Amino acid sequence: MPKSRLEAFSDGVFAIVITLLVLEIKIPALPAPVDEAALLAALIAELPMLVSCIVSFVIIAIFWVAHHQFFQTVRHADWPLLWINNLLLLFVVFIPIPTGLVGTYPTLHAPAILYGVVMGLAGAAFAAMRWYSGFVANLVDLPLTHRRRALQRALLSPALNFGGATVAVWAPQGALAFYVLVPIIYFALPAFMRAPAAAERERA
Amino acid sequence: MPKSRLEAFSDGVFAIVITLLVLEIKIPALPAPVDEAALLAALIAELPMLVSCIVSFVIIAIFWVAHHQFFQTVRHADWPLLWINNLLLLFVVFIPIPTGLVGTYPTLHAPAILYGVVMGLAGAAFAAMRWYSGFVANLVDLPLTHRRRALQRALLSPALNFGGATVAVWAPQGALAFYVLVPIIYFALPAFMRAPAAAERERA
Amino acid sequence: MPKSRLEAFSDGVFAIVITLLVLEIKIPALPAPVDEAALLAALIAELPMLVSCIVSFVIIAIFWVAHHQFFQTVRHADWPLLWINNLLLLFVVFIPIPTGLVGTYPTLHAPAILYGVVMGLAGAAFAAMRWYSGFVANLVDLPLTHRRRALQRALLSPALNFGGATVAVWAPQGALAFYVLVPIIYFALPAFMRAPAAAERERA
Amino acid sequence: MPKSRLEAFSDGVFAIVITLLVLEIKIPALPAPVDEAALLAALIAELPMLVSCIVSFVIIAIFWVAHHQFFQTVRHADWPLLWINNLLLLFVVFIPIPTGLVGTYPTLHAPAILYGVVMGLAGAAFAAMRWYSGFVANLVDLPLTHRRRALQRALLSPALNFGGATVAVWAPQGALAFYVLVPIIYFALPAFMRAPAAAERERA
Repeated sequence: MPKSRLEAFSDGVFAIVITLLVLEIKIPALPAPVDEAALLAALIAELPMLVSCIVSFVIIAIFWVAHHQFFQTVRHADWPLLWINNLLLLFVVFIPIPTGLVGTYPTLHAPAILYGVVMGLAGAAFAAMRWYSGFVANLVDLPLTHRRRALQRALLSPALNFGGATVAVWAPQGALAFYVLVPIIYFALPAFMRAPAAAERERA
Repeated sequence: MPKSRLEAFSDGVFAIVITLLVLEIKIPALPAPVDEAALLAALIAELPMLVSCIVSFVIIAIFWVAHHQFFQTVRHADWPLLWINNLLLLFVVFIPIPTGLVGTYPTLHAPAILYGVVMGLAGAAFAAMRWYSGFVANLVDLPLTHRRRALQRALLSPALNFGGATVAVWAPQGALAFYVLVPIIYFALPAFMRAPAAAERERA
Repeated sequence: MPKSRLEAFSDGVFAIVITLLVLEIKIPALPAPVDEAALLAALIAELPMLVSCIVSFVIIAIFWVAHHQFFQTVRHADWPLLWINNLLLLFVVFIPIPTGLVGTYPTLHAPAILYGVVMGLAGAAFAAMRWYSGFVANLVDLPLTHRRRALQRALLSPALNFGGATVAVWAPQGALAFYVLVPIIYFALPAFMRAPAAAERERA
Repeated sequence: MPKSRLEAFSDGVFAIVITLLVLEIKIPALPAPVDEAALLAALIAELPMLVSCIVSFVIIAIFWVAHHQFFQTVRHADWPLLWINNLLLLFVVFIPIPTGLVGTYPTLHAPAILYGVVMGLAGAAFAAMRWYSGFVANLVDLPLTHRRRALQRALLSPALNFGGATVAVWAPQGALAFYVLVPIIYFALPAFMRAPAAAERERA
């Protein structure tokens, strides 16, 4: 089973989810006559939603880059890989819901917990894809040491997100600060995050 | 007529429908001040919609996988195949409507009937594509026995869904339980469902 | 300038528009307790919207098939062709607006006029693409007689739609009936509509 | 890292944003019985939104054409280029927000400022892509003089838009008139805008 349509379908889903996120930011419907102050106040009230959307955008983009890098090393797809990928897409497609909840109710517990759970499930599905293709079905062109490092790296994301969801049970604000940190760590530690990717590129 | 743009267009429609489904789950708009209990109650009230969306996601993903496997065996497309595919996409595009209706009114008859009818029509269009390409226009690279088995398998889906819609006239709850069963059967009987696909892969 | 990304971008826009159409059909939000009769009445009230969406779906699919067939004969794209194509996409993107208006207010004049105008503008942009590529920039692989027939065929669609918009000024119901007829004619006269396409296929 | 999936993902995002824009134009929900005059008044009230959507459509299409022309000269992508492209997509995805704000509140300051800021940020990200690939990582197939001209041209767009946003602090109407002018300049000065593109085509 060639991997090209699987990539095209996944690219489509990632592109649509990343674009739909922003629909959570509504154009304020204010009663006429509208003055500058009222509109400005309504826009400032949407700042938590703006931050929530940008963080989710960056996280989905990280997933897409990881997906892209992973499939460059995949020789071909099989039926289980196809369905683990569909499972990943199922969780990715749900990301706008906790994003909108966190943006609307940033001080409550349920949104912060759900955010970590959905992100953690997406990360777990991606790690499952790494594990299945690298250690069960032997579908990737990578030496064993690189497969192991890539899987460890992939397990970091669900660990951090399920950790964040657990923190959110007691301290939702702390969990939200933590979710913002995760993508910052990704960019701050390029040597750690990108080294295996570079190795993958060399092999691909 | 090459099949590549037909595949790209279909992938786009499948990817968009599977992503739009989740828009049926609305962020609850609660009057301020919002407490944890009110939000939790509003989220729990959306559980039927969540189940409805997940079931439809899985069914659309099954359609996409079947579409993918089918087109791997298609040598090239012609005008009737293009339009039977457009008919399939028309029904796929409508799936969010019965999904939203079932999620909003899970105890009523009309949503449960409509769900089975739309899924059945999509399945019938897919079976028509198998029948046309395999027995009318000879567009596929498969031996006759495989074409027959693939068509029989493709007819199973509309038969089950139109059956479910008929059950829904008397017992909507029974029909909904039945719709949940269909994708479970798909994964529980891999040998039955995948054997022809495997044969297709070998030929492709 | 290769044509592949232009095709991919256009396919994306066509696929999204054809899927967004159905979002015009809203899940009825009825006050609880909801009984079967109230839901059924609300669903029946959406029948004009359903018909409007199906007709627009078929017309957009016809545009996409024509776009597909046209670009099979195009050797490569240039800057003006790119922008005439963007103009076509601008009008295609607007189709959900008159579709929603006709479905909501099927007895009034403005929706029926707008429907014909938007469809006519899209058809005119497509005819302009045929004219530019065939008679100005010589970008297509077709003998002159086929280019002429293809352009005449392409001019039929805006002529019929602007005609329908003119009829709608006096008789909106007559115009709507006419818009339903256009795609039926397309399928009823395959020899007329498809013959040049077949010729294109042979050359492509 | 091959550039094909990066292009496919970007095409998807551009296609979705350009189509979602039009969702800002709502079907008027008028109380029954609806007469022609009331619907016509409601449609005329949406004219500023229509103009706002068309201008944003044209600007996004210009971005897409520039993106297309730029990637034809890119030999391959690397990690920083991938992320500068994601940054560009982040700003592109936000375009529907200022578009909707300007269309709803065309006389106020905040929408006109935001419009210029978002367009300017998208333009700056595109210029950063030109600068990084041409002067830092040497990823493009263009002589140095062409790289310089292409970068200068790319800097024009953020300069004009940030300029417009500054004007909007005092005169929002003037800024809006200016935003309409920008795409007109693009088409009015083809020799200036397209000459480097033509050179790129020759090299590509």
